[in-house]
Amino acid sequence: MIDQSTICAISTPAGMGAIAVIRLSGDKAIEICDSVFRSPIKGKTLKEQPANTTHFGTIVDDDKIIDEIVVAVFKAHHSFTGEDIVEISCHGATYIQQQILELLIKKGSRMALPGEFTQRAFLNGKMDLSQAEAVADLIASQSEAARKVALQQMRGGFSNELVNLRNELLQFISLIELELDFSEEDVEFADRKQLKSIVDKISDMLSKLVKSFSLGNAIKNGIPVAIVGHTNAGKSTLLNTLLNEERALVSDIHGTTRDSIEDTINIEGITFRFIDTAGIRTTSDEIENLGIERTYSKIKKATLVMLMLDVNDDDEKIHSAINSVKNRMDNKSQKLIVVINKIDLLDENNISNRFTRKEFRELTDTDVIVPISAKHNRDIEKLTTELLKTINTSALDNNEVIVTNIRHYEALKKSHEAIQRVVDGLESSISGDLLAQDIREVLYYLGEITGNISSDEILGNIFKNFCIGK
Amino acid sequence: MIDQSTICAISTPAGMGAIAVIRLSGDKAIEICDSVFRSPIKGKTLKEQPANTTHFGTIVDDDKIIDEIVVAVFKAHHSFTGEDIVEISCHGATYIQQQILELLIKKGSRMALPGEFTQRAFLNGKMDLSQAEAVADLIASQSEAARKVALQQMRGGFSNELVNLRNELLQFISLIELELDFSEEDVEFADRKQLKSIVDKISDMLSKLVKSFSLGNAIKNGIPVAIVGHTNAGKSTLLNTLLNEERALVSDIHGTTRDSIEDTINIEGITFRFIDTAGIRTTSDEIENLGIERTYSKIKKATLVMLMLDVNDDDEKIHSAINSVKNRMDNKSQKLIVVINKIDLLDENNISNRFTRKEFRELTDTDVIVPISAKHNRDIEKLTTELLKTINTSALDNNEVIVTNIRHYEALKKSHEAIQRVVDGLESSISGDLLAQDIREVLYYLGEITGNISSDEILGNIFKNFCIGK
Repeated sequence: MIDQSTICAISTPAGMGAIAVIRLSGDKAIEICDSVFRSPIKGKTLKEQPANTTHFGTIVDDDKIIDEIVVAVFKAHHSFTGEDIVEISCHGATYIQQQILELLIKKGSRMALPGEFTQRAFLNGKMDLSQAEAVADLIASQSEAARKVALQQMRGGFSNELVNLRNELLQFISLIELELDFSEEDVEFADRKQLKSIVDKISDMLSKLVKSFSLGNAIKNGIPVAIVGHTNAGKSTLLNTLLNEERALVSDIHGTTRDSIEDTINIEGITFRFIDTAGIRTTSDEIENLGIERTYSKIKKATLVMLMLDVNDDDEKIHSAINSVKNRMDNKSQKLIVVINKIDLLDENNISNRFTRKEFRELTDTDVIVPISAKHNRDIEKLTTELLKTINTSALDNNEVIVTNIRHYEALKKSHEAIQRVVDGLESSISGDLLAQDIREVLYYLGEITGNISSDEILGNIFKNFCIGK
Repeated sequence: MIDQSTICAISTPAGMGAIAVIRLSGDKAIEICDSVFRSPIKGKTLKEQPANTTHFGTIVDDDKIIDEIVVAVFKAHHSFTGEDIVEISCHGATYIQQQILELLIKKGSRMALPGEFTQRAFLNGKMDLSQAEAVADLIASQSEAARKVALQQMRGGFSNELVNLRNELLQFISLIELELDFSEEDVEFADRKQLKSIVDKISDMLSKLVKSFSLGNAIKNGIPVAIVGHTNAGKSTLLNTLLNEERALVSDIHGTTRDSIEDTINIEGITFRFIDTAGIRTTSDEIENLGIERTYSKIKKATLVMLMLDVNDDDEKIHSAINSVKNRMDNKSQKLIVVINKIDLLDENNISNRFTRKEFRELTDTDVIVPISAKHNRDIEKLTTELLKTINTSALDNNEVIVTNIRHYEALKKSHEAIQRVVDGLESSISGDLLAQDIREVLYYLGEITGNISSDEILGNIFKNFCIGK
């Protein structure tokens, strides 16, 4: 199943830096590196050096010195991939990175496919499939919560539990299948009571895992928030204020993350993705109405809708804005937060009088009304608290296993459906062969998650989304 | 002079990748890393581990695991900086890189300034100043020639020669100064004939180094080429053809260099930078004439002017185009290449008849006429040969020392002027004290290059242009 070629790739981010790391993995990794490595100290080749050591020297193409480098040698079976690995730290010019890579290819290695190092780690039994998938999630993590969940999954928190339950179930199926061999004698090797207890345990756990996906998905992909409001309601001021708050918390040391976060904001480790919308208002202009309809259609993509109003809007305007937004929302899956901006324009008494009045709550028909001043950074914390309230992060705080991967989610849902059939079957005392069939199905879906059961197609789909070099 | 703090930085390129490397250097580098590193194998701390070894483990902030990483330990005085160094290879999420960096800062290191690792290598005597400068050049190198020259300089090819000559000169100056102490006795400790020979040797070498800068500068910064011509002469077709030629030669493995090369083209390791100009033609439109004047002003910045003409242009048009370009060129420092494009529109005989005619050479008043077809990729090689001919790369091919750094060039010019005064002084037998003064000046400028003589200001200027992490 594992092809025996030696693979190589640049493992550090693309572009110029102080140093770059080129990684080789495979049977011939050290041999290939030895063919282009010259040490100033005469003596041992890299092949003869102990594992987990670093060596200064030059990379040469015949007599031509390409760069001064440091080589780290890792040996099978204690390396990341389970194979011999060499990591070359060279000067970070893209030109040099490419020259060394081309040389390594010339000497008999080939360019690694995306995720191929991790795929080999999986195929060599260094990690299961859900752990391998977590490697990519870890690299893509942009918030504390995403990092934490991916790391936990990579370290086996997720799959350990599944494997244990799967093993317990495997014991039962063999007993049940033994019964089938003796079917004419009507024996029961598998204690149904004990089986019922383990099946219930699995069902509970699967149900919990399936439910955890709504938080897991929010952590991994961020929570989509549509900010809707008139263009002068202060939407961009609010975004800037939120961004600045975040900057103040996370010191921006090398300023490279600026581009990627754009309109996403991390609040206590959770990412909120703000969806830009055009300003809304009632108009008879057809083209403008088209734009407004587009805004409303964006609301559908959001988990959270934040309606921004101006403190000076009159009751009628507020009522109509809320109604038109609410009419486009799905009350079951979406939540509305009404933000009353520019409270600095009113004095304290007026604000509390107006917006805490029962009549105003009735007018807006929502409990979540947050008066703020985006410009003067007033009560922004109240707003972020409301944003956080929309998701239940207790599972995260309690270090519970959280499912973030849609592939796992689908397999877990199917496992759960199958285990429910086992539960029902046990209750209605169905025959052993039907029971065995349902249990086999549970085992199959659980095996899909950890990779005990996998196909080239599944693996291909998983690893093609990795970056090259991992 | 060296501050004793422990510095840290992300040394790999900015952004997300499979892995990233964070580097720590200083007395407390290993200690600080030990305070956040947990090994799965109980036993030795990193401090107790031998130099040049790698260790798998986790980075922890109290009980919180931040990432699974590999640490490489390097020890003073055999490391890059000459201090204890730790390199942490973590997962390449920018979020994780930043978390680890912040943790290391919290534990007592500080963010490194640009080039501070290399600066420490210089201050700790691991390399001289010209070698340190070559590190930055090497990282910035985008062509084979730039890489080669920078690597040679980093490996001491440049400074070794200077240091040797400077040391020889230092012996003489001490002898001459000894003479001054005995000035009333009229003795000559320093053999003038021997001194003359060494001074001549230095003068020759300095003269050669000073001259090498024109090639060195071209290698480092690329050769500026202005392509001038009517907009429909095929300028962009030619650029694309040249770019494609290059792509075919250098396999573009990870496609990251695409942006940076834009309109620069590497031909046999030499970079040519093409300067975009507006199309020229004779017009009475004032505004258009302004644009054309801007084109002509760009010609001034070029070392090479490539005038593109159409094979169908009549003699008068060709003559006027050449004249208007030539009038704006400096014949001494700039070279003209006339390119006749679209030869595919004529048959072979017509081309050779017309463009090899003596009359045509007289008309264009230039020897370098290259008929091509950019569109059909015909005779492009003849053009690249002509481009390469404009620079003398023999010094590069012969592995001679080539000066690429303007700071060195200025110091070398001043050294050369000073050494000429010594040569003249020796010939006219000037007094020992005047001779000593001139030699001191030579020593001063040579010392500036290698950093024997340096000021905080000079060092600051040099290292501020480095990237962080090197």
